[in-house]
Amino acid sequence: MSRPVVEFWYEFASTYSWLSVMRIEPLAEAAGVELVWKPFLLGPVFMALGWNDSPFNIYPPKGRYMWRDLERLAAKHHLPFRKPSGFPRNSVLAARVALVGVGEGWVAPFSRAVMNANFAEDRDIGQREVIADILTAQGLDAEAVIARALADANKLALRCQTERAAELGLFGAPSFRVGDELFWGNDRLEDALDWARGVRPL
Amino acid sequence: MSRPVVEFWYEFASTYSWLSVMRIEPLAEAAGVELVWKPFLLGPVFMALGWNDSPFNIYPPKGRYMWRDLERLAAKHHLPFRKPSGFPRNSVLAARVALVGVGEGWVAPFSRAVMNANFAEDRDIGQREVIADILTAQGLDAEAVIARALADANKLALRCQTERAAELGLFGAPSFRVGDELFWGNDRLEDALDWARGVRPL
Repeated sequence: MSRPVVEFWYEFASTYSWLSVMRIEPLAEAAGVELVWKPFLLGPVFMALGWNDSPFNIYPPKGRYMWRDLERLAAKHHLPFRKPSGFPRNSVLAARVALVGVGEGWVAPFSRAVMNANFAEDRDIGQREVIADILTAQGLDAEAVIARALADANKLALRCQTERAAELGLFGAPSFRVGDELFWGNDRLEDALDWARGVRPL
Repeated sequence: MSRPVVEFWYEFASTYSWLSVMRIEPLAEAAGVELVWKPFLLGPVFMALGWNDSPFNIYPPKGRYMWRDLERLAAKHHLPFRKPSGFPRNSVLAARVALVGVGEGWVAPFSRAVMNANFAEDRDIGQREVIADILTAQGLDAEAVIARALADANKLALRCQTERAAELGLFGAPSFRVGDELFWGNDRLEDALDWARGVRPL
């Protein structure tokens, strides 16, 4: 019997996506759920909602709260955390590379390394050198991977994936899809995995 | 030794406040936490953020998601739910009456009854007759309570409480305050109670 599938939609600049990227693999494994990693860009999705920046920057009380919430959640999940000196960081190259990684089987460790660079090491993941460093540390040929990431077909694939996110009704990240059910936010990760393995409220 | 205190800030028109109002008392009791009920109005708080309506109405994808999320959470928590035919409902009278109830010791059952009327029975809690019915069913003198709710001093007290919410950095409901720590959303109810009783991540 095939395993149930969860689509995991995430954005490298997104704080709550960071939490889910770091947490999801062992939880999915324990639930017997297969993950489909769906890196995408929130920027165009936010633009369609009328936001030209992160809502955490547009609405300062939400932003202040979010950073404190993140500190508490990092402690709760035992994740190293340092508030990035820039937010949100440019995540286009990271997402393009991640999409290559989906096809080549290394998207999960690469995504964790990028998230860790952004949210624990305060490195600028928008810089090509930072992404190259991360790829090299993963044992990959950084320049060759980046060349594949910057190929027109891959750039188009990321654009299509981002448009698909909006079509599916996504409005933030992380989001989880199980069939037609949408779950939004790191707070719903466990619920999405439960849903995938058939756990329903009585 | 005095028990730890959690301030519970909620709005009668708010969908996620409904979930917390219905859930909070047994959870607080089990945690040994004392609740201070803080009814307030989200309208002025939202206006200060530039929203003249619920964000769930302003941003349709968020709204569609929220109603489905609410159905799932109602099932999870075994709460009867019917999508209100009007949203958000006018909650000014309900909040004024609740503030009277804080002083007179019946705010909790009154708040549950109002939330149930709004989110399970699809009754218009903005109507004076509906609030009067609820008060009567609670064994209270409805007309006398409503007269106290509409007294200038009580109306001013609700306005002050709402202004205080914004000063404290609240930007949504429900919110929970433990000392200077703010927790936002029904998803953080358990975390807020844990924090109040001194449970900290290792």
